[in-house]
Amino acid sequence: MLGDEIVRRINELGAISETSEHLARIFLSPEHRIAADLIMSWMKDAGMAAHLDAIGNVCGRYEGDRPGLPCLMLGSHYDTVRDAGKWDGPLGIITAIACVADLNRRGARLPFAIEIVGFADEEGVRFASTLLGSRAIAGTFDNAVLDARDANGLTMREAMVQFGLDPGGIAAAARKRSELHAYVELHIEQGPVLEQQNLPVGVVTAISGATRLAAHLSGMAGHAGTVPMALRRDALAGAAECIVAVEQFCKADGAGLVGTVGVVNALPGAANVIPGRVSFTLDIRAPDDQHRKQAVAEIVQRIVAIAKRRDLLLQIDVTHENRTVPCALWLKAQVAEAVAGEGYGVFELPSGAGHDGMAMIDIADIAMLFVRCRGGISHNPAEHVEPADADAGARVLLGFIENFRPPAAATA
Amino acid sequence: MLGDEIVRRINELGAISETSEHLARIFLSPEHRIAADLIMSWMKDAGMAAHLDAIGNVCGRYEGDRPGLPCLMLGSHYDTVRDAGKWDGPLGIITAIACVADLNRRGARLPFAIEIVGFADEEGVRFASTLLGSRAIAGTFDNAVLDARDANGLTMREAMVQFGLDPGGIAAAARKRSELHAYVELHIEQGPVLEQQNLPVGVVTAISGATRLAAHLSGMAGHAGTVPMALRRDALAGAAECIVAVEQFCKADGAGLVGTVGVVNALPGAANVIPGRVSFTLDIRAPDDQHRKQAVAEIVQRIVAIAKRRDLLLQIDVTHENRTVPCALWLKAQVAEAVAGEGYGVFELPSGAGHDGMAMIDIADIAMLFVRCRGGISHNPAEHVEPADADAGARVLLGFIENFRPPAAATA
Repeated sequence: MLGDEIVRRINELGAISETSEHLARIFLSPEHRIAADLIMSWMKDAGMAAHLDAIGNVCGRYEGDRPGLPCLMLGSHYDTVRDAGKWDGPLGIITAIACVADLNRRGARLPFAIEIVGFADEEGVRFASTLLGSRAIAGTFDNAVLDARDANGLTMREAMVQFGLDPGGIAAAARKRSELHAYVELHIEQGPVLEQQNLPVGVVTAISGATRLAAHLSGMAGHAGTVPMALRRDALAGAAECIVAVEQFCKADGAGLVGTVGVVNALPGAANVIPGRVSFTLDIRAPDDQHRKQAVAEIVQRIVAIAKRRDLLLQIDVTHENRTVPCALWLKAQVAEAVAGEGYGVFELPSGAGHDGMAMIDIADIAMLFVRCRGGISHNPAEHVEPADADAGARVLLGFIENFRPPAAATA
Repeated sequence: MLGDEIVRRINELGAISETSEHLARIFLSPEHRIAADLIMSWMKDAGMAAHLDAIGNVCGRYEGDRPGLPCLMLGSHYDTVRDAGKWDGPLGIITAIACVADLNRRGARLPFAIEIVGFADEEGVRFASTLLGSRAIAGTFDNAVLDARDANGLTMREAMVQFGLDPGGIAAAARKRSELHAYVELHIEQGPVLEQQNLPVGVVTAISGATRLAAHLSGMAGHAGTVPMALRRDALAGAAECIVAVEQFCKADGAGLVGTVGVVNALPGAANVIPGRVSFTLDIRAPDDQHRKQAVAEIVQRIVAIAKRRDLLLQIDVTHENRTVPCALWLKAQVAEAVAGEGYGVFELPSGAGHDGMAMIDIADIAMLFVRCRGGISHNPAEHVEPADADAGARVLLGFIENFRPPAAATA
């Protein structure tokens, strides 16, 4: 069973943390270095050449039936959030290494190389900028981020030098489209859908695009006892109506739309004062950009109407926007074949969370395989994957690799 | 015009503040002493005997047609909230003094004494316990409050001694029911109803009772992108539905019910995380206790139903409860007569805010006369009363005093 070895390594990597209190493995920290060395040792054990690239990604290469062939790139990230689970990211790296190790044990060489990347920073905890590792590989790394400062005031440039990396060398980490057939990532679902479907794995259709908005409603603060209901301009009652409307709108959608109000602030914030000002955030995601943009427009329209009817001033701004990153149909079909090949029902779902594929799409077609995680819980020490599911994921990924046909062959 | 003198004194008293930045006149502060001395000087100018009682109330007495008669007690408070308006409280004291001064100028003596009390602490800013002055007079002062500490750690007992008062003497400030015919307070409305009615004054029916509740909803936190709408247990969406339901329920009521959610906290409080836990406050007031209790029960029932339908855990607790304090019918009728006597329409309204009458009810029948304030704004430096309205209030109060018949005569 590949699963046993995978779980053992998940635990070994999960013990590398800035504190024993909880798991936190942050970009360019001493733990980053220790984890990189461990992953490189696993890669070498699997018959791969391994090195650390200019941004701190761990890069392993297993040659194909002749040297220098374009590669199937696999990977995931090995940085974590603070108080993280140990599966988010590492499972994709460790499983890919386990697959290559299996090929290597059998002396199998394929008509393409396999590369595995452990991305140095996907979560963006330290410098508030995500996907740093995969952006470097995709050649879209923004050098302005080198001047970003961490909580201690250290710039990323300074942190790289302390770590032993050369900030001037990041461009050299970039890969060419011609070097890659595709990028495929195995990752825990971080949601409850596979559990609900009673399936160990799922085929990702797209990494959903997201629009984040900030809404501010202003009415009239007043004494909770002295202003009759009919004379109120209660900003919180207005915000509550908006929150309910967002939920209703998204629930009525049948195409993967999700909408979340995660933050609400009501001022002045006293039990006996009618709130005069309320701000809230709105996070809207869908696996299709046009669908999301249409939904955002309709939701904003409803909020505008609610504010107008209640005589509340409204300001609403887009604070963040991510395009949808679709999984390539030809590649997704091969992932689905591998799922069916292991005897599992093929279930497709969008990824509502962001992943390195969002950067990799700039130099390669991408696909993703999700592995069920308990309760859909992630970014939490309670994050858990059953060993049998880790094994299922590994068998599917191995089947996918062994049967992989590059796009030219796929379209022939 | 009595109004001019009243506005002059409002401004004079309003300048006595712990800071020139904003108005703040706090219990047992140096400004408390300065204000007390000023009010006592006004009382003496109006032909009254004046003294500071054991809790720091300013007490003035204008004898009737023979010494030692039971009194009609008038009054209000002269402490303020921080960043206060200058009318909330002082208007009632200053107007009552102006009325007595008018009687005194004319040498008029009535078949009852008139007493005016400037209550030392109604707002409860310093020791988080309200109505300290009127409770002392009503004999319901809780000596445990003497051990309450202010923000600097000073106990009320210590603050009283520093001020020059004897904490052991508070019981001596208590008055007997037989000494009072009634307690009548003139106060700004602190709400927008009189302005909407286009009336300078209004007759209060009752000081509304209030129930304050704290509700806690627990669902399941989750990633804003990865949990489909149908699988969510979003505590904030649930709270929003409750907030809308409270508003709808109170709006549908035609009998003075008001309900306010003033505080809401959603956790963990990140834009990309579905809130797992939300707490909010609920303030429900009505001019009738039974009506309020019925309304609270029905609102709680609706919240319970919403939580149940959404599979959210609910905890809901009553954190505070005030009975309704009704204005005595015989006394209210005399206030209404005085309003009509000045040619104004008689408009009755409940007081949604608390007042010293809530304590005074324990030793006397009470009534209140409201004076219009601009925009209903109070507890704010923008608090404003038109001089013509201050004058109208004074004329009505004077007419009321001159025509006052004690209850025995009223029921004859």
